[in-house]
Amino acid sequence: MDEHTAHMRRALDAARLGPEADPNPRVGCVVTDASGVVVGVGHHRGAGTPHAEVDALRAAGAAARGGTAHVTLEPCDHTGRTGPCTEALLDAGVAAVRYAVADPGPGAGGALRLRDAGVDVGPGPLEEEAAELNRTWLAAVRTGRPFVTWKCATTLDGRSAAADGSSRWVTGPRARADVHALRARVGAVLVGSGTALADDPALTVRDADGRVAGRQPLRVVLGTRALPTGSRLLDDAAETLHLAHRDPHAALAAVRGRGVHHVLLEGGPTLAAAFLDAGLVDEVVAYVAPALLGAGAGVVGDLGIVRIDDALRLDTTDVAVLDGDVRIKATPRPSAPRS
Amino acid sequence: MDEHTAHMRRALDAARLGPEADPNPRVGCVVTDASGVVVGVGHHRGAGTPHAEVDALRAAGAAARGGTAHVTLEPCDHTGRTGPCTEALLDAGVAAVRYAVADPGPGAGGALRLRDAGVDVGPGPLEEEAAELNRTWLAAVRTGRPFVTWKCATTLDGRSAAADGSSRWVTGPRARADVHALRARVGAVLVGSGTALADDPALTVRDADGRVAGRQPLRVVLGTRALPTGSRLLDDAAETLHLAHRDPHAALAAVRGRGVHHVLLEGGPTLAAAFLDAGLVDEVVAYVAPALLGAGAGVVGDLGIVRIDDALRLDTTDVAVLDGDVRIKATPRPSAPRS
Ligand SMILES: NC(=O)c1ccc[n+]([C@@H]2O[C@H](COP(=O)([O-])OP(=O)(O)OC[C@H]3O[C@@H](n4cnc5c(N)ncnc54)[C@H](OP(=O)(O)O)[C@@H]3O)[C@@H](O)[C@H]2O)c1
Ligand SMILES: NC(=O)c1ccc[n+]([C@@H]2O[C@H](COP(=O)([O-])OP(=O)(O)OC[C@H]3O[C@@H](n4cnc5c(N)ncnc54)[C@H](OP(=O)(O)O)[C@@H]3O)[C@@H](O)[C@H]2O)c1
Repeated sequence: MDEHTAHMRRALDAARLGPEADPNPRVGCVVTDASGVVVGVGHHRGAGTPHAEVDALRAAGAAARGGTAHVTLEPCDHTGRTGPCTEALLDAGVAAVRYAVADPGPGAGGALRLRDAGVDVGPGPLEEEAAELNRTWLAAVRTGRPFVTWKCATTLDGRSAAADGSSRWVTGPRARADVHALRARVGAVLVGSGTALADDPALTVRDADGRVAGRQPLRVVLGTRALPTGSRLLDDAAETLHLAHRDPHAALAAVRGRGVHHVLLEGGPTLAAAFLDAGLVDEVVAYVAPALLGAGAGVVGDLGIVRIDDALRLDTTDVAVLDGDVRIKATPRPSAPRS
Repeated sequence: MDEHTAHMRRALDAARLGPEADPNPRVGCVVTDASGVVVGVGHHRGAGTPHAEVDALRAAGAAARGGTAHVTLEPCDHTGRTGPCTEALLDAGVAAVRYAVADPGPGAGGALRLRDAGVDVGPGPLEEEAAELNRTWLAAVRTGRPFVTWKCATTLDGRSAAADGSSRWVTGPRARADVHALRARVGAVLVGSGTALADDPALTVRDADGRVAGRQPLRVVLGTRALPTGSRLLDDAAETLHLAHRDPHAALAAVRGRGVHHVLLEGGPTLAAAFLDAGLVDEVVAYVAPALLGAGAGVVGDLGIVRIDDALRLDTTDVAVLDGDVRIKATPRPSAPRS
């Protein structure tokens, strides 16, 4: 492993110490002095706290002058809640910057700004690993809409509820805990008003004992029907956004406007079909319970598909067994939006 | 590992050399002489060939006298296509017999017969492993009906066919090859007349190039409707039994009467529901394709289940990924037959 790779690996390890939750990317930075000795390691600790570069430069102090910064993500050039990292790097007098993955955003320009100021700037090693670390954030910045993960719980025969509508619990405790871990990482959870009215779900992140976590994703309900007073979604356990229309694109735009990069679509079948049909599902996480119902609502509504050749095909990316339930992660094959 | 365990392990290894296919169990035998030295190892090579004991005794010759036979299954005491193994063991003059698993059949009596003749007979080590080796055969002998494996191929949303009835191919080549490997091991494959008429299936064991294997399981069609002349099931690639009724119990009895211990139920949804409902499915092998259809026939018909609490629950025993398709093996939880 060459010197650059070793420093970038350490920066990636630092990045992983940051919170995984939306909305901020996880970033790490390693600063070496002019002779190549590591003098500062830093990472980003979440919204409102210093960026990784600033964190590492603080540790380095004057030793950073003439040195190199290894950052896992291209430094930002805009003033948000904190100042631009480009300024901090220039102020510290670093001679070179290596970044593992470029910021795909339309407003990105950190590398350019640094190069213009005379810094030796270049893409660093471990791009793939750095991209994987912020997979959903990067996709959201690239596409301009939140990354959408559709989660569903189903029996082996594709039922999400029994004939009488009862659906708790299709899957077991470990699968449900896994859903809460998923919720804890996203910026928003989304259901249709059908699910909101039928199930009166809380949609909060809770631990195994039912205790509500400190940080909660935004709860979003899409649909024209009003939520009855007394609905759990109207309690103060978390914020709820009710979008009284049926437009998936507009819904994602509204949620992105709230700073959300990752949405967990939690159903039901009608909304899942609408998002799949619009090509707005980036990832499917299906929890398949070893159970058979023979009747009851399917996990996804009508997609307008008639022939087997027109099936919506996905690529399996991960399979895990959680106490007998099978978790299948898959991504829809790229194709033109279906409508 | 003590001496007995070492010999039994070797007998199990020998057993595994035998053909896995129905109708015969896989049996191995290790014979030692009076001083404990191995003088013969044998295994059963399939219907009509010598049993493992006879095979091993042939190799041992006169050296077996006063020795011990380690057999993976209790020796038989009946005259089938070959003579009883008890006679062969007595003729050879072995002093002791150890068997890993008892024959659960009503007519079993090999151990008793040998004991009566003065042989030191006892259960040997590795019972669990020996039972696993002939899991389906032992279950069939114990229950008096064939072991039933229900195989289904389904999309992630539980569809076995698209809205227009087209169903080839839900799963990919590796999953389909796996089904052929499964067929190659069973004594019979079973479908309802619905599948026979809709799909005109061949139900033969074929390799990846479509070449028909030498040994074929019995093809069985259950249902009152006649098969049209020209149906593939009426060709001479394999024998076909058409049972013109709708009784799952009687069907299994008829198939057992043909010497079959293991039936592969290949659908469709109506027949699968009838067998599940009657408590006649011992194992489910589901191939879940990462695809969504949103409409089309479900993988299993109505089971009369209304509430989620009444779902037919299974225990997952094995999960494998075959080129993106997920194979889930599961066994229905023991419960009173549902009808
Ligand atoms: N197993 C699981 O993973 C799971 C997950 C969630 C829900 N469920 C089950 O699903 C059932 C509810 O099913 P559902 O299909 O009614 O729920 P849903 O998909 O959550 O809600 C459907 C409603 O969403 C609104 N909507 C918003 N955008 C839409 C669009 N583009 N197209 C159509 N409708 C849109 C419509 O309501 P308006 O008329 O108000 O506009 C529509 O009736 C419940 O029984 C629940 O338990 C299961
Ligand atoms: N994806 C898969 O794994 C898979 C596997 C197999 C089939 N399929 C699909 O399934 C479709 C056929 O569905 P299907 O349900 O008609 O097929 P099926 O279950 O094979 O056949 C149903 C027929 O079996 C007869 N039958 C025998 N015993 C019965 C009982 N106890 N109860 C009720 N009927 C009994 C009846 O025919 P009679 O009226 O003649 O008595 C009944 O109509 C085809 O499109 C096929 O492609 C899919």
